[in-house]
Amino acid sequence: MIFKTPTKHFFVFGTSEGYTMLNAFDGALLDAGIGNTNLVKMSSIVPPHCKLVDHIKLPQGSLVPVAYASICQAEPGVTLSAAVAAAYPEDESQAGLIMEYSAPARKDIVEKHVRAMAEKGLERRNLKIKEIRSIAVQTIVESIGAAFAAVVLWD
Amino acid sequence: MIFKTPTKHFFVFGTSEGYTMLNAFDGALLDAGIGNTNLVKMSSIVPPHCKLVDHIKLPQGSLVPVAYASICQAEPGVTLSAAVAAAYPEDESQAGLIMEYSAPARKDIVEKHVRAMAEKGLERRNLKIKEIRSIAVQTIVESIGAAFAAVVLWD
Amino acid sequence: MIFKTPTKHFFVFGTSEGYTMLNAFDGALLDAGIGNTNLVKMSSIVPPHCKLVDHIKLPQGSLVPVAYASICQAEPGVTLSAAVAAAYPEDESQAGLIMEYSAPARKDIVEKHVRAMAEKGLERRNLKIKEIRSIAVQTIVESIGAAFAAVVLWD
Repeated sequence: MIFKTPTKHFFVFGTSEGYTMLNAFDGALLDAGIGNTNLVKMSSIVPPHCKLVDHIKLPQGSLVPVAYASICQAEPGVTLSAAVAAAYPEDESQAGLIMEYSAPARKDIVEKHVRAMAEKGLERRNLKIKEIRSIAVQTIVESIGAAFAAVVLWD
Repeated sequence: MIFKTPTKHFFVFGTSEGYTMLNAFDGALLDAGIGNTNLVKMSSIVPPHCKLVDHIKLPQGSLVPVAYASICQAEPGVTLSAAVAAAYPEDESQAGLIMEYSAPARKDIVEKHVRAMAEKGLERRNLKIKEIRSIAVQTIVESIGAAFAAVVLWD
Repeated sequence: MIFKTPTKHFFVFGTSEGYTMLNAFDGALLDAGIGNTNLVKMSSIVPPHCKLVDHIKLPQGSLVPVAYASICQAEPGVTLSAAVAAAYPEDESQAGLIMEYSAPARKDIVEKHVRAMAEKGLERRNLKIKEIRSIAVQTIVESIGAAFAAVVLWD
């Protein structure tokens, strides 16, 4: 094994305006409470027995594996939404699945869609679903806006 | 050093249909036998003395460094191919090079192209090539399809 | 914590032509002196007390967290630039911020822009700026060209 397998996870989300798209993204990370860490994007599994916890204050600059959805646009008036869902199997020795989705659409639509994605993903694994957890966030762009939702993995 | 340097590697590939593009991608990972891990994408070196091994069953949810090509499309009837090639130098104290390529094209074309990419990359390093290994996979899209090929690094 | 937090960082940049866009990117990494490592892209913080050092010769094939800007194009005659900037706060117990920007534009324009991005990012954190460091590089495309600039984190 190259990396330690995560033993904890939690959900975060945020929105922001910014000077550029990358600044808006950075602002959304700050709003989500993880703006001073180094996100390493990964595809998208909750390891077996990985505990759902409250938001952990991460050390500044630490490298953090994360599954996320984000969307940035520079069209004033547009609604942007980002959402993540985790589907947990009944059999706790099996991994859960995280899905990410973002779109220029309302939050309820985006969240419903990402939940269906997670459900289909666990069905394909022939696993009975114990629970699906999701979060979603929306923002209406003023100038340059971003929405961000994530599952953070930690140890 | 932040991370351990990989000592083993192996090739995988898969294809899938899915409910969304991300579900098709997830299905292709499952088909490739690495769908229950957390892929961390990296650019694309075989460390010196990193052994080519048979497919290792990776722990569920583990973080896995991987060099990959993938392509997802929602156009029925289109052929999608993904391929990776690793060029190994004669001088085994030197690193090998992985190249990735995907396109809406036939597998033989995509594989030939990615092999040429790996060859050119090692030539640029002024290294004599001992061997080029590659894999490629194709699928014809029914509704929403994905093709995926990767070199997985491990320890 | 899953990964070690980086304690050192340094700036690199490079340009290249290549057989394909990925080969040009690979060539730019070689030109930057990090072409034989496995880059893991991350968003984009300088941890507190993370020292700025001279270019470290990294072990071949090692996994390297890096914040980077890159741009590849196949339009002969076009000027491509890539730049990164790090804004360091006066309060050294706080993290610094890295911003990345690339565009088909002159290097001075791209560098000025990325410096402004880093400045705005630290302002949003209500931190006084001690210093902004940046590098930028440009190339004029002959056939298929790439420009690359990065902050490499290490331990």
